[in-house]
Amino acid sequence: MALTQVSSNKCAGGLQKVYEHESTELMCKMKFAIFLPSKAETNKLPVLYWLSGLTCTEQNFITKAGSQLSAEEHGIIIVAPDTSPRGCNIEGEDESWDFGTGAGFYVDATQDPWKTNYRMYSYITNELPKLINANFSANPDKMSISGHSMGGHGALICAMKNPGKYKAYDATVLAGSYTGPQLDILIDQGRDDQFLSASQLLPDNLISVCSEKNIAVVFRLQPGYDHSYFFIYSFFNDHMKHHAKYLNI
Amino acid sequence: MALTQVSSNKCAGGLQKVYEHESTELMCKMKFAIFLPSKAETNKLPVLYWLSGLTCTEQNFITKAGSQLSAEEHGIIIVAPDTSPRGCNIEGEDESWDFGTGAGFYVDATQDPWKTNYRMYSYITNELPKLINANFSANPDKMSISGHSMGGHGALICAMKNPGKYKAYDATVLAGSYTGPQLDILIDQGRDDQFLSASQLLPDNLISVCSEKNIAVVFRLQPGYDHSYFFIYSFFNDHMKHHAKYLNI
Repeated sequence: MALTQVSSNKCAGGLQKVYEHESTELMCKMKFAIFLPSKAETNKLPVLYWLSGLTCTEQNFITKAGSQLSAEEHGIIIVAPDTSPRGCNIEGEDESWDFGTGAGFYVDATQDPWKTNYRMYSYITNELPKLINANFSANPDKMSISGHSMGGHGALICAMKNPGKYKAYDATVLAGSYTGPQLDILIDQGRDDQFLSASQLLPDNLISVCSEKNIAVVFRLQPGYDHSYFFIYSFFNDHMKHHAKYLNI
Repeated sequence: MALTQVSSNKCAGGLQKVYEHESTELMCKMKFAIFLPSKAETNKLPVLYWLSGLTCTEQNFITKAGSQLSAEEHGIIIVAPDTSPRGCNIEGEDESWDFGTGAGFYVDATQDPWKTNYRMYSYITNELPKLINANFSANPDKMSISGHSMGGHGALICAMKNPGKYKAYDATVLAGSYTGPQLDILIDQGRDDQFLSASQLLPDNLISVCSEKNIAVVFRLQPGYDHSYFFIYSFFNDHMKHHAKYLNI
């Protein structure tokens, strides 16, 4: 599991790095970004895994979300992986913006020709945390997960299928059969999100299930905001505080 | 001087917009970005002009610098123009990354074939402020200017050639003959900036001139930081505070 450093930039007092490695789950080269707060030089720190949305790489979040200042403040490592395998030469993988490359949906595919490479669920919940814990100053008992759009849903399916693995979560629509430790979910939703008005997001379903199941969820409908990184940037600090509540105790 | 709105995203409580217009100085279509804090709905606000560096468009600063939260906090409009005329069909304009397109250097060219279009100095100091003051809730008596790299130098030549026009400034090497109102200059310089070690920046010359002329300059050599937007993002809040000292009185 050798890592190759692709880039390293000092940022907000810490280091924003990108690494490449051969993934055994995905059978291809994968990149991930990692922000190491200055405290990582002397302490094992909690890790927040951030899952990005459709079409993103490891770059979008680290260049656009303005996350590093609050990660440095709270002393939390952020790991932002790519969103799918790349360059696997599967027929049709590059034909659609919402299927295949850039659109791994954080699931393990079950059918040919996808099932050999498209195993993002196992990559995110198993291979990547092992890699991070083995190579960086990370506390393996303090993990948390969040994301945006496809990645918001990805964060919750990872959390729901692994009760207790992550200390805090952000979003999804699959809370109905959850039986693990108490959840505390924070969701921001732009009221003028183009995918909301196109009925592709359905947050009401999640609220309704959480209400039935007595799952703590704060759902904030933010007037005027859309689906973009301008939206993510606007509220990221609140989400970092939400995760820090559980990670820094 | 009709403006066409290219995009509008709610961000940090305000609106991050991009407009296009026909520039009379540059004889081509130009885009600029403008962040309007929520207070602009009811008040005329100060304006900080941000000049970007080589190869940038109006997009780099607004997507990568994380500027909007502090602009909202301080109630300051930020205008981020493009860095050169575009599509003027001048022979050689697209051949080099540091000359022509994306590299207007904020000067008025004096020679053919450049002098008709490459008038960024006049655009930044004259046409653009008029446009902003006429179309937005801007206080024409409270302007300030800052920038990065080519744009840091651009900010100072604009300021030095127009004593009293801008209320605060950030950087340059041309302070020697300045005779206007007292300046207060804040400069951050990454100590591991690749252009610093290549001797392309020469901040010592500026410090030395400022010292001779008793110009107030705070020069912070930031260990480990490079020339990238990760560096800009890390210190932008400090610069916003620096400008707010003069703009919000």
